[in-house]
Amino acid sequence: MKSKKMTFPLVVEPFQEDYSGHLSWSNLGNFTLRIASLHAEAHGFGISYMMSHRRGWVLSRLAIELQERPRSLQHYSIATWVSRIFRQFTERNFEFRDADGCIIGHGISTWALIDYETRQPVNLENLPNGGFQDAVLSEVPPIAPYSRIRVKEPSVSLHHHCGMTDLDINGHVNSIRYIDWVLDAFTLEWHKAHAVHRIEAAFGLEGYAGDEVDIIVEAVGENAYAAEIKRQSDGATLVKVMLYYH
Amino acid sequence: MKSKKMTFPLVVEPFQEDYSGHLSWSNLGNFTLRIASLHAEAHGFGISYMMSHRRGWVLSRLAIELQERPRSLQHYSIATWVSRIFRQFTERNFEFRDADGCIIGHGISTWALIDYETRQPVNLENLPNGGFQDAVLSEVPPIAPYSRIRVKEPSVSLHHHCGMTDLDINGHVNSIRYIDWVLDAFTLEWHKAHAVHRIEAAFGLEGYAGDEVDIIVEAVGENAYAAEIKRQSDGATLVKVMLYYH
Repeated sequence: MKSKKMTFPLVVEPFQEDYSGHLSWSNLGNFTLRIASLHAEAHGFGISYMMSHRRGWVLSRLAIELQERPRSLQHYSIATWVSRIFRQFTERNFEFRDADGCIIGHGISTWALIDYETRQPVNLENLPNGGFQDAVLSEVPPIAPYSRIRVKEPSVSLHHHCGMTDLDINGHVNSIRYIDWVLDAFTLEWHKAHAVHRIEAAFGLEGYAGDEVDIIVEAVGENAYAAEIKRQSDGATLVKVMLYYH
Repeated sequence: MKSKKMTFPLVVEPFQEDYSGHLSWSNLGNFTLRIASLHAEAHGFGISYMMSHRRGWVLSRLAIELQERPRSLQHYSIATWVSRIFRQFTERNFEFRDADGCIIGHGISTWALIDYETRQPVNLENLPNGGFQDAVLSEVPPIAPYSRIRVKEPSVSLHHHCGMTDLDINGHVNSIRYIDWVLDAFTLEWHKAHAVHRIEAAFGLEGYAGDEVDIIVEAVGENAYAAEIKRQSDGATLVKVMLYYH
């Protein structure tokens, strides 16, 4: 029986770690999105619904906060549920637990349902038969809301050529790749000296193969960096990212 | 009971595909290496052996040839066995099958066992108690041997800054990443018009975070490209790659 909050057990397999032996942010992010789609499918608003209605979920914002990422061969779990539906948006949350069942982190995300015909977001409050209202569980993770992300005077920057291997099955740059590029704007020495414990992303325009992008980064206070990923051809910002570290 | 040839069942999960809906070369390559290590561990010369003896396997060459990569949600399997041990090298082979058990491809690879004290390869024929001789199965895949890879007049090139997220748990650039960079030297239009069916890599020097590399590519005849990944600081070639397409 589907429940409003569903938990998915996972294990950190070899080749899923980063240099430090922890599950990479890239794999963590993609597994989080994968679990979102499994939950959506179980509740009747996943890929089957989207294909038959010619609509698709688009990730608008994501924040993941973790005390520590699990290590090689460690078991962990990701739970997810929908806490709110408001006009064109829905809020989906995540809870991360270690092998002992202790909470190690949380996530929040915001999604829109785009109609492929009109290219416009659908009003989620007016769907037939109440739409997805039955799935809503009004529980909210105990982490800070999304930050306002803005880069004024970048101090670090990196260039990237978007290639075929950056794309996902939709033909756009995979959402989590943007986060990798921001992490790569910092040296390995910086990563060894600091631990990133929260990553946020605000998704704007889609990136495509052939795009040349600049990743510009600015320190914000003592423990955070704001970043923007800008397309060189027209200076448009594709995605904004914020890293919190200690 | 461990057998000389071991078969591992797999399935293409969401987020493992490339833009075309096929298992990405990146995931295919990493799963192939993962299965190599599971087989090695089962036969007593995997990670446990390496950690207690302070030795490590280093991949020297790899070639994978596939008629078609499996698609989203399709089942497939990778089988592996060791066919030869000669001085400092061992040859490991792979066989890829689709959901019906039909062979869809093969792989060959060459490995050396490096002693961490001396930094030299160990002579695999002189190991105590015959070493890994019991695991050898003298069956060789029906694909062409390794190509000679050499770039003389590059026609395509790409630059890449090696970042933290390119590294694996050993702190070097992940072996399969080099292949991704060569694939990314071609436009999406090129990929849509052609199918790469064989990829080879000859691994030389390790790449590290902070390395700036050039990926230079030259057409070799009608259906192949040779590529070299060169470190900008000293012009050294880290890895050579060959792509065959139709």
